[in-house]
Amino acid sequence: MIDLHYAPTPNGWKISIMLEELGLPYRVIPVNIRAGEQFRPEFLAISPNNRIPAIVDHEPADGQGPFSVFETGAILIYLADKTGRFLPTEMRARSQVMQWLMWQMSGLGPMLGQHGHFALYAAEKIPYAIERYRDEAARLYGVLDTQLGKTGAYIAGDYSIADIACFPWTMTHKAQGFTLDDYPNVKRWYADVRARPQVQAGLAIGKFVKEPFDEEARRNMFGARAKEMAGKS
Amino acid sequence: MIDLHYAPTPNGWKISIMLEELGLPYRVIPVNIRAGEQFRPEFLAISPNNRIPAIVDHEPADGQGPFSVFETGAILIYLADKTGRFLPTEMRARSQVMQWLMWQMSGLGPMLGQHGHFALYAAEKIPYAIERYRDEAARLYGVLDTQLGKTGAYIAGDYSIADIACFPWTMTHKAQGFTLDDYPNVKRWYADVRARPQVQAGLAIGKFVKEPFDEEARRNMFGARAKEMAGKS
Repeated sequence: MIDLHYAPTPNGWKISIMLEELGLPYRVIPVNIRAGEQFRPEFLAISPNNRIPAIVDHEPADGQGPFSVFETGAILIYLADKTGRFLPTEMRARSQVMQWLMWQMSGLGPMLGQHGHFALYAAEKIPYAIERYRDEAARLYGVLDTQLGKTGAYIAGDYSIADIACFPWTMTHKAQGFTLDDYPNVKRWYADVRARPQVQAGLAIGKFVKEPFDEEARRNMFGARAKEMAGKS
Repeated sequence: MIDLHYAPTPNGWKISIMLEELGLPYRVIPVNIRAGEQFRPEFLAISPNNRIPAIVDHEPADGQGPFSVFETGAILIYLADKTGRFLPTEMRARSQVMQWLMWQMSGLGPMLGQHGHFALYAAEKIPYAIERYRDEAARLYGVLDTQLGKTGAYIAGDYSIADIACFPWTMTHKAQGFTLDDYPNVKRWYADVRARPQVQAGLAIGKFVKEPFDEEARRNMFGARAKEMAGKS
């Protein structure tokens, strides 16, 4: 059994989709990030960066005690290696998946995250910041489109954890004001991935209550609470 | 022989330090990012995200033709697996290194990068953005400090690619207005890592000419050039 500490966000969806793809038994432990549950000591013991998702594997391959993993890229690699799926062992194919997984972790995710913050969430609308991240997001969609045009299939050839990492972030495209009509290869890939029943199942996980996006939620999600806690320690 | 397509930045230093740690033969191919050389087609063939560094390994383990790798996290894993160093094979130890490597790739690097942009480079000074990223950088330094306090050694226990990934970004602390006196475990670790002769050698690589940081450099480094190129394609 795997515990999935979870909220329904792009990063959360990566792991619920992966677990559905693998058919591994898991249970969802909701973490209400708007209410600040990510700052509880028992969660920090699993996820020292106070971010969801994180997993605890109660049946790790070495037969020893439970093992916890944080950071979606590391969770995807851990689960892929545990099961031998979605991450080739052959050196070149494996590295190609790693390269695009890292591109998602360092680029697509953080930069779409910043664009979402400034364009959609921040109370103050700052044209410089909105434009900076909109341009960077557009550049990244362009890079992805070129790559998908090259492979004609999935991001690193066969369907892999690179696709599972990128797909949930591209689900933000409409809310963030992008159209996939500008990126025909992304559009083709997006439809392919979205049609997978396992992806649908992963996205359906945790359609539980959304807490109101109020001042308390802003405090918990945009750093004020973390700052207070650091001051107290 | 490994070709290192390189500029002396925190991301570049990760790989020059790794190559020095490994003692692998390599040659530096400077990429003048201020002059826009990252947009040349021959560089994009190696690094489709138009970012440095990237490597081409002319003697990959499979004995086949040259193999190129982009994204520093993927390059570090590739080189670690090639040589069997700085990334354990045992499942738990390996995942712990991966978790902190991913934390650097998705958090420490991108967020210190954003703080540097708004606090130091952007022509327009925007208090909201500077504060947002200063707070996030401080939070991340706090997370690193807690982790280093737990291990009492390096980030994931033994010295690993997690340290090699994090260290060059923490070198920005003074320029970005942080003092390691606020993070005693980071301070201890920073001195340990910096004292390694291989780290010194890696940092010395590419102390070649710095082009002026002028309007042309801003255009090439902050997205305007990438936007023009996308418009033309």
